Amino acid sequence: MSMSEPIQDVAHVGHVELLTPDPEASLTYFRDVLGMTEAHRKGDSVYLRGYGDWELACLKLTAAADAGVGHLAFRTVSEQALERRVRSLETCGLGRGWIEGDAGHGRAYQFLDPDGHLLELYYDADRYQAPPELQPALKNQPQRYPARGISVRGLDHVNLLGVDPGENRIFLEEQLGFRLTEQIMLDDGTEAGVWMTVNNKSYELTYTMDATGTRGRLHHISFAVDEREDVLRAADICLENGVFIETGPHKHAIQQTFFLYTYEPGGNRIEISAGGYLIFSPEWEPIVWTQAERAKGQAWGLQTVESFHTRGTPHVPMAAGHDPS
Amino acid sequence: MSMSEPIQDVAHVGHVELLTPDPEASLTYFRDVLGMTEAHRKGDSVYLRGYGDWELACLKLTAAADAGVGHLAFRTVSEQALERRVRSLETCGLGRGWIEGDAGHGRAYQFLDPDGHLLELYYDADRYQAPPELQPALKNQPQRYPARGISVRGLDHVNLLGVDPGENRIFLEEQLGFRLTEQIMLDDGTEAGVWMTVNNKSYELTYTMDATGTRGRLHHISFAVDEREDVLRAADICLENGVFIETGPHKHAIQQTFFLYTYEPGGNRIEISAGGYLIFSPEWEPIVWTQAERAKGQAWGLQTVESFHTRGTPHVPMAAGHDPS
Amino acid sequence: MSMSEPIQDVAHVGHVELLTPDPEASLTYFRDVLGMTEAHRKGDSVYLRGYGDWELACLKLTAAADAGVGHLAFRTVSEQALERRVRSLETCGLGRGWIEGDAGHGRAYQFLDPDGHLLELYYDADRYQAPPELQPALKNQPQRYPARGISVRGLDHVNLLGVDPGENRIFLEEQLGFRLTEQIMLDDGTEAGVWMTVNNKSYELTYTMDATGTRGRLHHISFAVDEREDVLRAADICLENGVFIETGPHKHAIQQTFFLYTYEPGGNRIEISAGGYLIFSPEWEPIVWTQAERAKGQAWGLQTVESFHTRGTPHVPMAAGHDPS
Amino acid sequence: MSMSEPIQDVAHVGHVELLTPDPEASLTYFRDVLGMTEAHRKGDSVYLRGYGDWELACLKLTAAADAGVGHLAFRTVSEQALERRVRSLETCGLGRGWIEGDAGHGRAYQFLDPDGHLLELYYDADRYQAPPELQPALKNQPQRYPARGISVRGLDHVNLLGVDPGENRIFLEEQLGFRLTEQIMLDDGTEAGVWMTVNNKSYELTYTMDATGTRGRLHHISFAVDEREDVLRAADICLENGVFIETGPHKHAIQQTFFLYTYEPGGNRIEISAGGYLIFSPEWEPIVWTQAERAKGQAWGLQTVESFHTRGTPHVPMAAGHDPS
Repeated sequence: MSMSEPIQDVAHVGHVELLTPDPEASLTYFRDVLGMTEAHRKGDSVYLRGYGDWELACLKLTAAADAGVGHLAFRTVSEQALERRVRSLETCGLGRGWIEGDAGHGRAYQFLDPDGHLLELYYDADRYQAPPELQPALKNQPQRYPARGISVRGLDHVNLLGVDPGENRIFLEEQLGFRLTEQIMLDDGTEAGVWMTVNNKSYELTYTMDATGTRGRLHHISFAVDEREDVLRAADICLENGVFIETGPHKHAIQQTFFLYTYEPGGNRIEISAGGYLIFSPEWEPIVWTQAERAKGQAWGLQTVESFHTRGTPHVPMAAGHDPS
Repeated sequence: MSMSEPIQDVAHVGHVELLTPDPEASLTYFRDVLGMTEAHRKGDSVYLRGYGDWELACLKLTAAADAGVGHLAFRTVSEQALERRVRSLETCGLGRGWIEGDAGHGRAYQFLDPDGHLLELYYDADRYQAPPELQPALKNQPQRYPARGISVRGLDHVNLLGVDPGENRIFLEEQLGFRLTEQIMLDDGTEAGVWMTVNNKSYELTYTMDATGTRGRLHHISFAVDEREDVLRAADICLENGVFIETGPHKHAIQQTFFLYTYEPGGNRIEISAGGYLIFSPEWEPIVWTQAERAKGQAWGLQTVESFHTRGTPHVPMAAGHDPS
Repeated sequence: MSMSEPIQDVAHVGHVELLTPDPEASLTYFRDVLGMTEAHRKGDSVYLRGYGDWELACLKLTAAADAGVGHLAFRTVSEQALERRVRSLETCGLGRGWIEGDAGHGRAYQFLDPDGHLLELYYDADRYQAPPELQPALKNQPQRYPARGISVRGLDHVNLLGVDPGENRIFLEEQLGFRLTEQIMLDDGTEAGVWMTVNNKSYELTYTMDATGTRGRLHHISFAVDEREDVLRAADICLENGVFIETGPHKHAIQQTFFLYTYEPGGNRIEISAGGYLIFSPEWEPIVWTQAERAKGQAWGLQTVESFHTRGTPHVPMAAGHDPS
Repeated sequence: MSMSEPIQDVAHVGHVELLTPDPEASLTYFRDVLGMTEAHRKGDSVYLRGYGDWELACLKLTAAADAGVGHLAFRTVSEQALERRVRSLETCGLGRGWIEGDAGHGRAYQFLDPDGHLLELYYDADRYQAPPELQPALKNQPQRYPARGISVRGLDHVNLLGVDPGENRIFLEEQLGFRLTEQIMLDDGTEAGVWMTVNNKSYELTYTMDATGTRGRLHHISFAVDEREDVLRAADICLENGVFIETGPHKHAIQQTFFLYTYEPGGNRIEISAGGYLIFSPEWEPIVWTQAERAKGQAWGLQTVESFHTRGTPHVPMAAGHDPS
């Protein structure tokens, strides 16, 4: 095999840890509104899963002083792949070292991205075994469909904020083998947003520009449902439950995902999404959106809400003194 | 990189050639009922594409004396991958040699599977350029959505018949790196069906047992739509167009795809499908369905139609003398 | 106003009483699988409502030795209309007299149809007042959307079995002002099925022929959801909850409703339905389906299940000695 | 029958005449984007139908200097009902007299509403007979489903602008028997919007306040599709066809309809809608929305676009000098 050929070492985004200053209300949101299932508890954390998760949990919800992302974990395709990536990370200056593991998975290697988010690589993970009351009717599904609230299938993608999305893109390309699929390029050459993947999903990880100039913040976490109608129903359910809807449902121009953005009670932005496309071509050319194209808004004309460009967690006031959240 | 690690050399199923004894009626079916777009013509063949195809065409429709599959083509991830696989195929006894290429792609290597179907590997392919009248509104889509008939996105998967699905599974695992994701295992140990993939789709290629004992036949080709509602609408459209519906819409137990099976005028079975699931786990354990489980029918209880086990193209009478098609 | 002009005295089917020999399991089915809300309890009965019901309840679930329908109630458009209809019913020989009322409504007049089902007319009814925890977000909805199980909106229609559907049709036309919208007419002139309405819905009450020759039985009660996708999701939910699916999801040829038929634990057949059409034309010509047309099965080709023609509640063995249920 | 009882003399909104200064482009929009079928041509008018129309056409598209509504026609339940209503209209001062008829229907009585829109009552109408190429597969449908563009079923409702919605409401209640179902009542007592019906649909005719103070203008005409997914697909189709989307898809708070607003090439606002609710209660209490409630925007939080309050056809500049269209 030629050294110039790309190797896929990272399989997918495995789970994310979300910090909340209102853990009880946040748990109610994820369990009763999103319809996730509590899989485990430890310390200040509750581990939550979608009905389609083959691992224990895709969301670790942790009580904290401020909202935001705790860490984001990627699963590798093998132990060798894990070690190969760790060797590289250890020399890049952003490595943080191994942890013993967490509920549902074994040892993991932690490191930072250039923006300061805590990331993690792991391979060893338990296959989820549903308890009797959660046994699915079909054996190709890890857990029964809950039919409670929105009933999300699992994690879809994570969107981090970055002071410089481009430096994070380069880091993830070089260190983890991510590929750029779509991108916003402003007239002055600034990469204002990058959509990246390691597999056939058109994106699993996104960085968009943090207008406040703060590092380490979260834009949103997205959970997947199957049908666009499920997203519409999700909006009905949020309305009935007093959940704040920031924007949507509507269709993104970028990536064509059908979206709904809400705030969970801890203050983090949570998306419900469906649709989009898969990429199978081995020679994908990234789609580049110009400033003018971006200004057209979403696919069907909805203008991007102002808070989308400024609001993240933890909350940070704008330099100019106004807090758009 | 350790030699024991799997390498993904094949990217995806690229296109399929379908043979039809009634080419005009078949073309009308694919263009007006399925909503595909004619991309090219050459000799006795018309090349058709879904609106989501980044290559020229996913279906080559060729006039022939009998219905059936002409060939099935897989795209590799690179030229090196192509060469690596060809070296292996050349020594396995089933290699047939290079062809110069076809509309939309360059040289390709042809070979047989153990059941006698003609398969093909290629890497070099043209990126589709939509003519002005087919320019899409969104640049992350290769062609405008036609809104004509069912408006399929593109090829979803191909289901070949095989006298012995298991021998074909082993061949594809060894020669092309396919992985088994779901399987039917009869009580006597017969592999009656194998669902396989090379990427995150849970299947792209299936072999099910040919009860007539004939080699080289086609069970069906499936085209993808986005939503389950699109499959229901497809059934409405088939009804209005006099297209024979063999079974469905319903949800498969195996793979959970939402399906509709029709016969195109040339006699080939064509499926419209949506849904199912993606596989990101690097250590997937194949789901094995027993004879008793299979007898339960489809997910919501619909019995599998008898013709599903016997009818394929080209048409072949059953040994016992009855032709169930 | 000319005497020859039709007067609409009956507004709609108001509620139905269902008998169950397994009241606890039936309650679980209606509350947790169908997502109905318990609105009241009295004696052996639980009153259940859909989230879209403006009256107290559309279903009175009553413990009984055998499954079947207790009574079926129609609401009139006014007190005068009620009195006008009662005067007529009192002279037809099938009147049974007034009852004082029931939970959610005042006095009602009970009578029999020619087949022996107990029917009821009432006008005085309470407008439902949701308790605080069930307050809807939008004031044009009587109760919040539950997002639990199938979450039906309310009663859609009732299908009674009749030894002679035609005599019941004539009775309902003459006594209650029902209009025939669709009909099955066998080659020998037998009316095998009649679909009737008093309003713009294309049917609210159906009689189909009881092949066992028994009087007073129920074929099914249907509950409404909004989208065809909701019916598909209902099938997923029934599958996960071990609810028996008799047939569907599929689209009826007659009335074009999208259907799913299940058995509730008490043995009664319950349909989940969506779609169909409304009738606004004042001069509708009933659609008559011949025996040959009926034999084609449902809209997309699904054959009508044998149990559809024979199974009703209470259960009755076939005269020929076989019990198809 | 007591004189105090309401009589339903008007069956439904039958058709609407739309004026366009760009008749060819408008025809392309209705035929190819909305998927309507040309049923007739006469003079400067093309008559268009949805696949679910039992009469000849629901839209008469007429070339004119300015955009706007030509006339709006209601069908009565009988000849007697027509005569009864005409007798009343003839004495109210707004009657205009009989016309001989038009394509698809016989004599009609024309009159004005207080705002100056031309209205029409008729009873005699032809039942549509589909030509061979448009024969439906199911006999309970007047025409085959076109599967071309959005493929609307037919007219859903018409929204007229009025200088004083309240005076028009009273006129329609008294003269045609319309009932108010929902209403916007501003803090100063102004009726800013009235939603009215004569049947079980929760609205067929709406008046909203014309902020320009101009009489006789059109806000929009709405065409029905069956599923919310159809409205989403409609947005995809409009995007691909360069049709301007003013707002949506989203769910109305008032009436709960799922909507998409577009401008047809002649400048008229055209809605695609699905969902909402039916009213069967004979004692409906109108839902009254306050100014504060209205300010909350649509059901899921989308703010009502400014042009919604000011833009109508024919186009009129705002008194203050700005033209918001």
